[in-house]
Amino acid sequence: MKIGFLIIGSEVLDGKISDLNTKYLADFLRRNNLEINESTTVRDNSDSIKAGLTKLFIENEVVITSGGLGPTKDDITKETIGDFFHKKMLLNHEAIQIAESNYKQFDRIFPGQDHGYAYLPEGFYPLSNSTGFAPGFYFKEKNKILFSCPGVPREFNSMLSDHFFKISSEKIDHKIQMRHFVVRTKNVPEEKIFGEVDPTLWEKLQKFGDVSSLPILMGVDIGIKIKGSSKEALDKQEIELRSIFASSPISKSIWHIGTESLEQKIVSIANDKKISFGFAESATGGLCSHRITSISGSSQSFLGSVVCYDENVKVNQLGVRRETIDTFKVVSPETAIEMAQGLQKLLKLDIAISITGYAGPSGGTTEYPVGSACIGLALKDGTTRAQTVRLKGDRDILKQRFSQAALYTLLEELEKFADS
Amino acid sequence: MKIGFLIIGSEVLDGKISDLNTKYLADFLRRNNLEINESTTVRDNSDSIKAGLTKLFIENEVVITSGGLGPTKDDITKETIGDFFHKKMLLNHEAIQIAESNYKQFDRIFPGQDHGYAYLPEGFYPLSNSTGFAPGFYFKEKNKILFSCPGVPREFNSMLSDHFFKISSEKIDHKIQMRHFVVRTKNVPEEKIFGEVDPTLWEKLQKFGDVSSLPILMGVDIGIKIKGSSKEALDKQEIELRSIFASSPISKSIWHIGTESLEQKIVSIANDKKISFGFAESATGGLCSHRITSISGSSQSFLGSVVCYDENVKVNQLGVRRETIDTFKVVSPETAIEMAQGLQKLLKLDIAISITGYAGPSGGTTEYPVGSACIGLALKDGTTRAQTVRLKGDRDILKQRFSQAALYTLLEELEKFADS
Repeated sequence: MKIGFLIIGSEVLDGKISDLNTKYLADFLRRNNLEINESTTVRDNSDSIKAGLTKLFIENEVVITSGGLGPTKDDITKETIGDFFHKKMLLNHEAIQIAESNYKQFDRIFPGQDHGYAYLPEGFYPLSNSTGFAPGFYFKEKNKILFSCPGVPREFNSMLSDHFFKISSEKIDHKIQMRHFVVRTKNVPEEKIFGEVDPTLWEKLQKFGDVSSLPILMGVDIGIKIKGSSKEALDKQEIELRSIFASSPISKSIWHIGTESLEQKIVSIANDKKISFGFAESATGGLCSHRITSISGSSQSFLGSVVCYDENVKVNQLGVRRETIDTFKVVSPETAIEMAQGLQKLLKLDIAISITGYAGPSGGTTEYPVGSACIGLALKDGTTRAQTVRLKGDRDILKQRFSQAALYTLLEELEKFADS
Repeated sequence: MKIGFLIIGSEVLDGKISDLNTKYLADFLRRNNLEINESTTVRDNSDSIKAGLTKLFIENEVVITSGGLGPTKDDITKETIGDFFHKKMLLNHEAIQIAESNYKQFDRIFPGQDHGYAYLPEGFYPLSNSTGFAPGFYFKEKNKILFSCPGVPREFNSMLSDHFFKISSEKIDHKIQMRHFVVRTKNVPEEKIFGEVDPTLWEKLQKFGDVSSLPILMGVDIGIKIKGSSKEALDKQEIELRSIFASSPISKSIWHIGTESLEQKIVSIANDKKISFGFAESATGGLCSHRITSISGSSQSFLGSVVCYDENVKVNQLGVRRETIDTFKVVSPETAIEMAQGLQKLLKLDIAISITGYAGPSGGTTEYPVGSACIGLALKDGTTRAQTVRLKGDRDILKQRFSQAALYTLLEELEKFADS
């Protein structure tokens, strides 16, 4: 089953928001051995929407759309798709019932058949929305399925989960299973991995399926899409792949095998081993804490952080000595260590990680220009350590990369701890 | 000049990363009175790339591509586009020079003509990359321009800025100027704005250009795309639009007119008025601080924060009384106020904002279920206040919304302060 995705939204093409639904849709489909074949983003006007549908239905039997189902006049998806299939707009009693129940979950009363939600093109079926007001819909004709969801990510998401498989189940080939085998490496550029470190790796991997190499922040994700007729067949391929990586010189740069994020892995190890941690964040300004607290369950091991943007906060809250800052400057291994030590004592942490650096665009010294950061570490047993990273990018990217360096340091340290 | 954007990357369709380049491209083009007409995302295989080019060149004279220019075997953009235009791959001396200088900026030596970067399809021109290794390229044929950039956002961005207008200048109509007039409202759903609060607003706005309504976090951005032959003509329309909004009942829900973000507006007012602030973040886990520190210059007024995820951090660092937590629970206006008071004293802030809530999926009480948060405020003069918000969404969305509620509160307070 080939699936095309039509994103309807001038706001995406105008850069007002970034599309997040592709990622949701891909994750949802992957869990069911399916994938997006191609996607197209068009403006909210009927010619563009119709052209997008025409192009996507060339190759794909199923087209999923997002956006343009709301109540305002720029929301024209339903009318346009009806027109595309030459269907008249009709009052639809099931659509009214669904709209009524959508409204009811927010303690509001649906205005009734004067409202646009009461109408659907002939032969279209309405879909309930468990997280919003606007109903979705689907339509089947010959070999084609069209499935339309709101563009708001939460609503897009819940409508997919609630309805997609009921509608498309007859098209799904349950015989082929697919798995993304992902190996996550750090601190080696992709060119070096495949050019110098292990020049024959790609060829070896290719025998198992499509290989991809994706640079992310300060690492590279190597992915192999494996297929098989059963879980056992996939497991067998995975064992072979693991052994290829284990005997490759790249193995020492692998920090994870699997699709889990760095944050997920940190929280899972810290919770298992019962290790408490926190951050003294200057250059990352709260980002490390934000990344960790995006993981449910992080409160078991992440106790808290001090965002010490101002020098006085470093001195007064964390106990960094003025003398250290005067002698070594605020971005220095010495300051980083005192920040981590201060936080460790303050919150009685097993591991305290500090970050002080220059995210730019202004600031920096000759020794530590914009892009430099010192990552400090202090443990309960008194161990301290600091390292300096020198990275490139604008402010946003540098904050991301500094936080990545800090989280890599934390992960390494967590892995050294004995199981609790 | 119609511009199509071809995103080449299985990693986007597989949900491994979200495309950020559309936003960069849109922002870049808008500053020059241009926009993206449509975009398509395809997998890294030659049939899909060629089909994408064919579809985009139907309507667009310029096609910009991102992705697939790197050194690994899944990077096939250059070869495929050459093939699409029936051009042979040739050794290109200018490409070698450019690759050499790209490598030099990272203190590395380009391996020379054995490397793929040394080759280009006949008639293609190489483009230097000021932030990465891989050269880009462009090609002109008849009325068409093709412009290919790497997919890494930083490199995509710099290549656009460095080269795009030199290549496409003859196609740009300098006579028509465009401006996005954006009115940012809060706390009223779009359906209510156009259905109840001001039912004639849409019609009035439509006379000026394309109107859009975009729900974002806890507000709605109303946009009007105005066009004119001069800056003066645009200014005149903007004055008329401002007066329409000023006399609309929605005016009291407007927090900003313009495209600046909430973070930008907060930093700009706080810096102008010389007001210091910080956050006591529990449920937002560092997100408020991260959002503020994404703005260059924020260090002038944002001094720091305490991420007080654990109850002991609230008590020991912020001085929240155990009694308050026992009596009123950790998510309560009373606890929120003590958190804000504690932070205000600790960092000697003009404004301290606190957030305590349940982001889920687990947790919550009958009175304060998941989705509830209390936002506290404490000022230097001793004023304190708290409000409760009850929102919907998963953990990520709730963190975003809680932080938005906290930043709205901060903005309101900053606006009350007298100019310094």
